Amino acid sequence: MIDIQYSAEVRAAKDAGQPIVALESTIITHGMPYPQNIEVAAQVQQDVRDAGAVPATMAVIKGKLHVGLEDDQLKALGQAQGVAKISRADMAACMSTGDTGATTVAATMIAARYAGIEVFATGGIGGVHQGAETSFDISADLHELAQTPVTVVAAGAKAILDLAKTLEVLETLGVPVIAHGQDEFPAFWSAKSPYAAPLRMDNAEDIAKAHATRRALGLPGGQLVANPIPTADQIPAEKLAPIIASAHADAETHRITGKGVTPYLLQRIYEQTEGRSLTANIALVRNNARLAAGVAIALSNSN
Amino acid sequence: MIDIQYSAEVRAAKDAGQPIVALESTIITHGMPYPQNIEVAAQVQQDVRDAGAVPATMAVIKGKLHVGLEDDQLKALGQAQGVAKISRADMAACMSTGDTGATTVAATMIAARYAGIEVFATGGIGGVHQGAETSFDISADLHELAQTPVTVVAAGAKAILDLAKTLEVLETLGVPVIAHGQDEFPAFWSAKSPYAAPLRMDNAEDIAKAHATRRALGLPGGQLVANPIPTADQIPAEKLAPIIASAHADAETHRITGKGVTPYLLQRIYEQTEGRSLTANIALVRNNARLAAGVAIALSNSN
Amino acid sequence: MIDIQYSAEVRAAKDAGQPIVALESTIITHGMPYPQNIEVAAQVQQDVRDAGAVPATMAVIKGKLHVGLEDDQLKALGQAQGVAKISRADMAACMSTGDTGATTVAATMIAARYAGIEVFATGGIGGVHQGAETSFDISADLHELAQTPVTVVAAGAKAILDLAKTLEVLETLGVPVIAHGQDEFPAFWSAKSPYAAPLRMDNAEDIAKAHATRRALGLPGGQLVANPIPTADQIPAEKLAPIIASAHADAETHRITGKGVTPYLLQRIYEQTEGRSLTANIALVRNNARLAAGVAIALSNSN
Ligand SMILES: [Mn+2]
Ligand SMILES: [Mn+2]
Ligand SMILES: [Mn+2]
Repeated sequence: MIDIQYSAEVRAAKDAGQPIVALESTIITHGMPYPQNIEVAAQVQQDVRDAGAVPATMAVIKGKLHVGLEDDQLKALGQAQGVAKISRADMAACMSTGDTGATTVAATMIAARYAGIEVFATGGIGGVHQGAETSFDISADLHELAQTPVTVVAAGAKAILDLAKTLEVLETLGVPVIAHGQDEFPAFWSAKSPYAAPLRMDNAEDIAKAHATRRALGLPGGQLVANPIPTADQIPAEKLAPIIASAHADAETHRITGKGVTPYLLQRIYEQTEGRSLTANIALVRNNARLAAGVAIALSNSN
Repeated sequence: MIDIQYSAEVRAAKDAGQPIVALESTIITHGMPYPQNIEVAAQVQQDVRDAGAVPATMAVIKGKLHVGLEDDQLKALGQAQGVAKISRADMAACMSTGDTGATTVAATMIAARYAGIEVFATGGIGGVHQGAETSFDISADLHELAQTPVTVVAAGAKAILDLAKTLEVLETLGVPVIAHGQDEFPAFWSAKSPYAAPLRMDNAEDIAKAHATRRALGLPGGQLVANPIPTADQIPAEKLAPIIASAHADAETHRITGKGVTPYLLQRIYEQTEGRSLTANIALVRNNARLAAGVAIALSNSN
Repeated sequence: MIDIQYSAEVRAAKDAGQPIVALESTIITHGMPYPQNIEVAAQVQQDVRDAGAVPATMAVIKGKLHVGLEDDQLKALGQAQGVAKISRADMAACMSTGDTGATTVAATMIAARYAGIEVFATGGIGGVHQGAETSFDISADLHELAQTPVTVVAAGAKAILDLAKTLEVLETLGVPVIAHGQDEFPAFWSAKSPYAAPLRMDNAEDIAKAHATRRALGLPGGQLVANPIPTADQIPAEKLAPIIASAHADAETHRITGKGVTPYLLQRIYEQTEGRSLTANIALVRNNARLAAGVAIALSNSN
């Protein structure tokens, strides 16, 4: 067994049986510069509280698994240099070597399950990368969803990915993909994509019920709730599509490969949208935090 | 825990420790028109009984998991409109929303395991679709076989799929593929394909023993028993191959994509074989039901 | 439960709680001619002993799972004809039919877990084959690493495979890939490849700690320790690369396909290196046996 470091708030919530929402930490260490990163993280935590649940931001700090961060821990993490971005493959190594790592979607799901937390809010999940038919570059998040029983609320997968292939892999792996309040699978910065979502649910209670039914059936995996960005905050797909295409073309021109591609594309999109991609990103994470809180509350009421 | 609705017959068989064979229900709702669909379903159930076992047709009806259908339930399902076709990804959602769904291979395996049934007869499993190297379209049935300990008796995978790639994925996932009574992997409507099966067994007892050994080893997945269609009922591969090829070409000409492709191909093959594809389909399902009953009986005797 | 046949040495080691290292047996039956095969197997076993642990060579002999082979069993296996090469998919069938089979990486991992052995030394793991984007030919070893909690010490994956894609699939499946003592993923006969390893550890204790942390976290899979061949024994990558490329070209010219490709390539490389590829293979297996013993000892001390 691992000795979990709970924040005082999460510890109290667990003792009282209150609804808890897991949050990831790569958005803090790799998503935005300091101090904006910790301001946004604190804001998202407050959104979870305002919606009636307790936020549990996950991180590995000096080898310890933290479930919920105190304010000073959050601040230190937001300023730390060279923090690892940990997934299923390197989470244990990060812990055993006493290192500090921010949790991706996969690692946050593992931490959440370990701490008995069933709902998690993030921005977007990883997926199948463009060109994966020859690169085989597919995020570990998809297999994590197939095996770890956590409901993940995200605005879909980042639209720089191959969304059609991402949906195929999720179907192959038996992962429920539930669009919230619309028929289409959302596209992160845009509320809609050309792809139909396999399932649709219009409220948190239905999502919680489906989660509880999976648990009762003993199915090992989680659910992906694809929650569209509020239309007021979105960058419409027709406006974004050419920007994404040109970012991909630029990456090819500059021979950006491997791990370098995603940060490069995000930076190009940030520049070409004059920062609107980041504003949208913040809005959608907050939106997801609110829905996740609703799901956690509904789940808590039904238990 | 889920509250299973057993038919009287399956309930009695479970109480008496009799051998039971799971059957799927998409063949009823999506495979044939009414009333042929329920006539064939009743016939296949009777084949299982005649061979000495008890049939358990699976379905989700108004949110309840049914293991074994009473005659009136079967008839109602066979006439129902807009029934969902449920797989691992949407089975829990169908149950939690109170909907009605017919079980695919993956969902039938889940239901069977949940009900403690270890043998399942169907027509053909899903597999890797033609063009999957760029579409990533691969059935969830393959991963289900890798994780759910049920022996599935099928006439291979439908021959409109990419059989070579389907066999590769099964090997990668560690699924035993056992040809019954021949060396070749069968091709659904045809007894033979150009592909060697990795394993061959010539009787139900050996298949049951291998199943029991997997269980004893604690291996989580199932076995695929590839049972060739009786030669009297088959459409020889050399006759069918050009029909399948032209059906694929037609689908491309008419720009049929996604979920629409399989029904389109099956309809074209039905037309081009003047209905013989359906006659063959019925013959092979009945043949599989008999072998599955034999496996269930052998397994029951050895327990 | 399966009745395991332990060798006297392994039985005593288990009773005394001594560190044990699993070894595979396809190197004996399919890797080298008799009597070199059993000489090398005996040597590798002795290397494990000299390093302070107990070797447990795995095999299925006449349907029985052997964990540790007596000398006469090893000799008989080394001379046997037509021994199956068993993986996850056919291990149970081999046992239930009373056949004899040598264990691949996947089957050795299954046997090791079943016998409570957590560390395993081999030459190289299977991986993604060249051309897998169209053939879908991917070894079952990769999924085994994702689900079976055994630390596998290997000199990477055989360099005839597509190493870049192999690393991608391991990442997707959440498998830790730990290079020992260097930053690069090794390339079997060569100490270095152009690919960075995701993790690096410089001693057996750190590897054991990471293994124990995974166990404490309840993560189901294993770790791949990529241990470079000692530089004195290697064939430098720049020398080997054209030989591998020409072997692939020859295989294409002679239309070698499917299961025939790997043996053909290995034979061509053996000829083109004038036997140095085999000498290197022996050296790297012995090197892996020593490191695996160190990991097993460290794990044993920490328990
Ligand atoms: Mn990747
Ligand atoms: Mn599909
Ligand atoms: Mn293969």
